[in-house]
Amino acid sequence: MARGGPIRTSVGGSTADTITVAGHDLVDDLLGKISATELLYLEIQGTLPRPEQTQLLNAMIVSLAEHGMMPSVIAARMTMLGAPESFQGALASGLLGVGDTFVGPSANVGRMLQEEAQEFEGSAAEKAERLVAKYYDQKKRIPGIGHPHHTIDPRAEKLLAMQRELGVADEYVTLMLNIHKAAIARRGSHLTFNATAAVGAIASDLGIEWRAIRGLGLVARSIGLVGHIYEEMRKPIGRAIWNLVEDHTEYENPV
Amino acid sequence: MARGGPIRTSVGGSTADTITVAGHDLVDDLLGKISATELLYLEIQGTLPRPEQTQLLNAMIVSLAEHGMMPSVIAARMTMLGAPESFQGALASGLLGVGDTFVGPSANVGRMLQEEAQEFEGSAAEKAERLVAKYYDQKKRIPGIGHPHHTIDPRAEKLLAMQRELGVADEYVTLMLNIHKAAIARRGSHLTFNATAAVGAIASDLGIEWRAIRGLGLVARSIGLVGHIYEEMRKPIGRAIWNLVEDHTEYENPV
Amino acid sequence: MARGGPIRTSVGGSTADTITVAGHDLVDDLLGKISATELLYLEIQGTLPRPEQTQLLNAMIVSLAEHGMMPSVIAARMTMLGAPESFQGALASGLLGVGDTFVGPSANVGRMLQEEAQEFEGSAAEKAERLVAKYYDQKKRIPGIGHPHHTIDPRAEKLLAMQRELGVADEYVTLMLNIHKAAIARRGSHLTFNATAAVGAIASDLGIEWRAIRGLGLVARSIGLVGHIYEEMRKPIGRAIWNLVEDHTEYENPV
Amino acid sequence: MARGGPIRTSVGGSTADTITVAGHDLVDDLLGKISATELLYLEIQGTLPRPEQTQLLNAMIVSLAEHGMMPSVIAARMTMLGAPESFQGALASGLLGVGDTFVGPSANVGRMLQEEAQEFEGSAAEKAERLVAKYYDQKKRIPGIGHPHHTIDPRAEKLLAMQRELGVADEYVTLMLNIHKAAIARRGSHLTFNATAAVGAIASDLGIEWRAIRGLGLVARSIGLVGHIYEEMRKPIGRAIWNLVEDHTEYENPV
Repeated sequence: MARGGPIRTSVGGSTADTITVAGHDLVDDLLGKISATELLYLEIQGTLPRPEQTQLLNAMIVSLAEHGMMPSVIAARMTMLGAPESFQGALASGLLGVGDTFVGPSANVGRMLQEEAQEFEGSAAEKAERLVAKYYDQKKRIPGIGHPHHTIDPRAEKLLAMQRELGVADEYVTLMLNIHKAAIARRGSHLTFNATAAVGAIASDLGIEWRAIRGLGLVARSIGLVGHIYEEMRKPIGRAIWNLVEDHTEYENPV
Repeated sequence: MARGGPIRTSVGGSTADTITVAGHDLVDDLLGKISATELLYLEIQGTLPRPEQTQLLNAMIVSLAEHGMMPSVIAARMTMLGAPESFQGALASGLLGVGDTFVGPSANVGRMLQEEAQEFEGSAAEKAERLVAKYYDQKKRIPGIGHPHHTIDPRAEKLLAMQRELGVADEYVTLMLNIHKAAIARRGSHLTFNATAAVGAIASDLGIEWRAIRGLGLVARSIGLVGHIYEEMRKPIGRAIWNLVEDHTEYENPV
Repeated sequence: MARGGPIRTSVGGSTADTITVAGHDLVDDLLGKISATELLYLEIQGTLPRPEQTQLLNAMIVSLAEHGMMPSVIAARMTMLGAPESFQGALASGLLGVGDTFVGPSANVGRMLQEEAQEFEGSAAEKAERLVAKYYDQKKRIPGIGHPHHTIDPRAEKLLAMQRELGVADEYVTLMLNIHKAAIARRGSHLTFNATAAVGAIASDLGIEWRAIRGLGLVARSIGLVGHIYEEMRKPIGRAIWNLVEDHTEYENPV
Repeated sequence: MARGGPIRTSVGGSTADTITVAGHDLVDDLLGKISATELLYLEIQGTLPRPEQTQLLNAMIVSLAEHGMMPSVIAARMTMLGAPESFQGALASGLLGVGDTFVGPSANVGRMLQEEAQEFEGSAAEKAERLVAKYYDQKKRIPGIGHPHHTIDPRAEKLLAMQRELGVADEYVTLMLNIHKAAIARRGSHLTFNATAAVGAIASDLGIEWRAIRGLGLVARSIGLVGHIYEEMRKPIGRAIWNLVEDHTEYENPV
């Protein structure tokens, strides 16, 4: 046994003859039988998802994967320009920007619903009111609420509609909708229920712990980044991006 | 226009109101209608896959995603030990090891089939014989053939069986099987047709250019790594791994 | 001007004819005249260091760069095993583990000295006492104090002795020594003033803002990692490390 | 002993009481006595450099570290925008672009001088002529020769002048100058001896194996990137860069 204790994992193991993933034989039980999305759920949760859970997971991944020329896409393309020899380097470079600004908020919604709101007693409406009051007292921004352009976020609406149609448990979405309502009441004007809120709440309803929501976002973004990196190999625009930025940069001496 | 030319992409674009992915409106056309795997195909190929193509893609991703305590998993867990604040850092660290040794060979199979073998005239059998002769002359190892333990690779068998049952085009798999046969004839003894060969050949049959095969492998591994990183958060073994390695390391002065 | 405002930098700029670094012409003013360490100070601070500042910076970098088979070294070697084609990938993989656990604490010492302790009035001794009281009340661990094995940390002693001999300003080191004293008084038994405390306090005395201390640690570790990665190229031990870990790993089904 | 063999390193080792770096005790022999640059040489070469070697190393690092708004700087700033929580993530993202395009060529000069040119017999002039003839026959570009703007590269001139003044061995620089001369003779018109050639040849004269030259470039760039990342924390321009690029990007449907 190692000094730091035993080295045990339940995610995956291999012998000379078999690979096991969370209790399932890779070749006999999984290969040809499950999708990439079901495997992701199995990796995180240790059990296979039900069909409606898979549908929601797919919808969340699709909603997060591709948003056009995002900062992480620019990073990946700059890295490909400098190191065209390494696909994985460009992908890693892009994924490193999938942090607190763009994917973190969904996980923060999850934490707020799974932990912070649970510290209060009462119905969903009561928990929501107390939570919103606490955020206002502490002058903290409520994650998942507000949007720069829109009064309605069509991705959020679609995800919520899917969940309703599929009839899955919606405890956390209900709580989040109550938080949304309480926040509007506090502020006295409209606030948008955005895609971040939908992803954080629906993932919570699927039983995904808030810390794992980041993993979901990262797999989604890896799909979008692979598309951009492969396009950069065939029709490079990295040098044009670099030149554009360089031409608009002014150097000035430190004061 | 930027000095380096126009900055154009066909992968994804966004305006204040919409997100478009390879010609499809994200909310109206994709969200709730396609899976993560179909999105990956759309990102790479610019069109949506047919159902049997999706099935094969899922099978390939499942076959690549999780192999237990691989070097990239150890790297990700070591990174989580040093920087527990960054899920994306641990994932990036693991993905950086998905390179020439473990995922590159599938792309090399793709290049061999899509480019090198096409330089020869004739039937699949004739192309295969000439290609194998060339590799022997140049003392180069043929990618996708041979295995440290097994005479049959069950993952390869399963993937080939699926392709046959689904009745999709199998030009490249046929070519690879001929290369396998020609290699055995040359050597005079059995050689294993391994999972690398199956993935490289089937991906080629799906119309995926060899350079994009690395992207497929990276998305697959990101799924497996997310599982290990999330387990490391809940039941850490990173310190035990570190201690084990440190206790077995001998420092010796340079000579 | 870009939508998000002007793009201005004072770190470095280039034209077709010249490169400027923080107000200095690269070829005429810097090349052949300053060391790598002086350049690092210039990059962070915008001015060149005095000789005694350079000496302390070198000492801090040397103290942080190499600690043998650390987790970040294992990560870099695992990445080299999987992707031997990319030196930068192995380095990036290793640096990603230089986070909250091993380098963050020095920056936390810097923040405590530069920000938290400054919220209190009085002499260094009074600030220290109030700060220690606050940490005890909040049951928070004081960064830079305590060591698993030693009552004296020889690296810390050496760094403090150098600073004394060089006669540079020592406001923050004095404050940290007072915090150390107050912590011992509180606890009633000995606590070690460790290398983390020395680096955080001396960097603060050099005028380096606490957030930049991480940058110092990262440059130091990049030096050590380059040594290990280059050795891994010539005398690889990555596969032996992998096999060792794999042989000690037990897979167990999820409960 | 591990299945893959013993795990031995000569770079660095630690016990509960000491840290050893390539045969030297960290506290007694190195701390306060050597600079970061000397430590880098020790990590790579296993011995300490002579003073004139240290001067040349410093000059090469200074010449490589900072070139203004390079692609790797843009990548690091995009990553900081998305993941402001991780200094190491931004640095890793930037370093991943330090590959074949911008730093690789110096290592390629080193390989050409240390390996390819040594396959020919004769004087430096004869080796150079034969090497240039071979490159022309194979229609390969000679690394280190040519420049987009200049007939003279002031960084290269400065580095060569320093080496002459310091009177160190210049076997490889002499060979590179002969290659430059032979290339001009072949082409019949002027070609620039650029900084890449100077770094590759001088590093070779310092006894640094060509594969380690990448490590030198990576440490240099980590210094420049730390400056930009720290500026991005204090005076962020990442969002302005993102907006600029987004505003200049045209989405067009795939054909």
